[in-house]
Amino acid sequence: MTPSKGIMRATIIHAPGDIRVEDVPAPGIVNPTDAIIRTAVTCVCGSDLWPYRGLEPVDEPHPMGHEYVGFVEEVGSEVTSVKPGQFVVGSFATSDNTCPNCQAGYQSNCARREFMSTCQAEYVRIPNAHGTLVATPDLPADEFVPSLLAVSDVMGTGWYAAVAAEVKPGSTAVVVGDGAVGLCGVIAARELGADRIIAMSRHEPRQKLALEFGATDIVTERGEEGIVRVKDLTGGLGADSVLECVGTPEAMQQALHSTRPGGNVGFVGVPHDVAIDGQELFFSHVGLRGGPAPVRAYLPDLIQRVLSGRINPGKVFDLTLPLEQVAEGYQAMDERRAIKTLLTP
Amino acid sequence: MTPSKGIMRATIIHAPGDIRVEDVPAPGIVNPTDAIIRTAVTCVCGSDLWPYRGLEPVDEPHPMGHEYVGFVEEVGSEVTSVKPGQFVVGSFATSDNTCPNCQAGYQSNCARREFMSTCQAEYVRIPNAHGTLVATPDLPADEFVPSLLAVSDVMGTGWYAAVAAEVKPGSTAVVVGDGAVGLCGVIAARELGADRIIAMSRHEPRQKLALEFGATDIVTERGEEGIVRVKDLTGGLGADSVLECVGTPEAMQQALHSTRPGGNVGFVGVPHDVAIDGQELFFSHVGLRGGPAPVRAYLPDLIQRVLSGRINPGKVFDLTLPLEQVAEGYQAMDERRAIKTLLTP
Repeated sequence: MTPSKGIMRATIIHAPGDIRVEDVPAPGIVNPTDAIIRTAVTCVCGSDLWPYRGLEPVDEPHPMGHEYVGFVEEVGSEVTSVKPGQFVVGSFATSDNTCPNCQAGYQSNCARREFMSTCQAEYVRIPNAHGTLVATPDLPADEFVPSLLAVSDVMGTGWYAAVAAEVKPGSTAVVVGDGAVGLCGVIAARELGADRIIAMSRHEPRQKLALEFGATDIVTERGEEGIVRVKDLTGGLGADSVLECVGTPEAMQQALHSTRPGGNVGFVGVPHDVAIDGQELFFSHVGLRGGPAPVRAYLPDLIQRVLSGRINPGKVFDLTLPLEQVAEGYQAMDERRAIKTLLTP
Repeated sequence: MTPSKGIMRATIIHAPGDIRVEDVPAPGIVNPTDAIIRTAVTCVCGSDLWPYRGLEPVDEPHPMGHEYVGFVEEVGSEVTSVKPGQFVVGSFATSDNTCPNCQAGYQSNCARREFMSTCQAEYVRIPNAHGTLVATPDLPADEFVPSLLAVSDVMGTGWYAAVAAEVKPGSTAVVVGDGAVGLCGVIAARELGADRIIAMSRHEPRQKLALEFGATDIVTERGEEGIVRVKDLTGGLGADSVLECVGTPEAMQQALHSTRPGGNVGFVGVPHDVAIDGQELFFSHVGLRGGPAPVRAYLPDLIQRVLSGRINPGKVFDLTLPLEQVAEGYQAMDERRAIKTLLTP
């Protein structure tokens, strides 16, 4: 099938709780910097649950999904960095990789950025493909594919959380949030050399995975009690680095109060109703940086870490379903029966 | 006179707008880590204007002042780092200089911190003197004394603003606020190697001093227009580093929106009614760190820069009055007739 002329199956949200797979026109090249990929695997993101739960409006039916790996089907005339047949990893935010923000390492703030939003589907059009997609050296073995998918979003985001929180060799890191991003944040903190990694989680399967990924301590308490526990574990000071991987006011407070004076919070959960008190931040001496992760900056390194077997973030996928069952994939994550759902078109 | 047994003249605020010099008991050693200094010069801080203007409550009459240089009169039994007769520079926040926060370079968050508040007076008790005071190599020439006084607060604070904003050689810095701290922030940005320093000011005498201190551009616009001007001057991107030296919501917005993605804001004006929107900060990719400046960390270096003639932050004092006329000193700053008032006891 030539996707640009055909019909494909794609995920559409109609209303909170109402996710369907439908026939829609397959995408074609629109701009000379586009590529069309055939989706190898895709998945459901924690942030997809915001509209699913009605916490973000769904004004009209629209496609879903921003995580993808796949095979290049077709490229626009200006795309020379990848070619048909290659296996590629991208990012949820596309980028030309040449503008000043890209050059500064913030590809997710590219002047030409477009956020992906149609990836839970058989085929996907990737804008800015020349600056967004990175091909693997060879077609990867099946065992690596889930981890490469994780790299396209949650692993890249966990990495940025650790970078923004300035995790350094020998330091102490706290990870707030035990979703897929938080768990990947544990991997990132370990890879960046943290000696002590405190994962805040009260869900046993996630605690186990956190420990497997490199966490040295688990804190089950939240709020004031959680802060006291972190202080107890850090000589009364708080941690050098805290990765805030949720996006709620409670998680931000947890993060800010768990950080030592002069330490850093990296926040990667899209903030919902989060306001930071200027005077409180002032007297804390805590540094703060967040944002959509510049995944593109990390792709070559993270792909290499996956293919060498050094990291295995694909373990966050504890439920695999065919695309046709995407609704169950959302529901399982909503009910916390699954950490993250992998979808096979 | 032995100050611990005598009476001295000291500044007392009775109510907003009501500043008086009165006879009070001179201080004596209370703890073995104290020192008593005879004030060489002291001054009025922009933050002293908050209660003066009624923007902070004055519940009962209390002393004022947190900036000082002077001659050691007497030391407690545990103070060996300075001795009577020496000329010393300190900080508005005292510190033992040994606790973990001090060791991490955040002496203004010392576990034993006490904020100074009685310095517009003839004699001052310095708690934690062993970790707070730094003596000059010799008694300094009179010409250096105002700059050494500036180092004890505004110059140290401007320096921290530049450090927190991560000013680097070759970078572009914006300074929001043309008070003494902002002007010292210009000096700091220049010393830390910024190529381009944009000072936001619409007061001509302050613009002149900013240019003399190293500013390369002056922006007189504020608010949205000021942001547009900064963007125009920085290729549409915003600055690498922004020093927020005011503490109002308007100044913080100005700072956050003048910074490029991946850039940094250092904020040193004590925030009043400042709340930072989490989602806005998130999508900006701007890093943010503030706080009371760890002046102690910079004292040896800044004293050296002053005594070598490399920096002359004492120029921010454009009004010198005897302590007895402190009320006029406040009024002149309140009415913006003076940038900063030096007081001679």
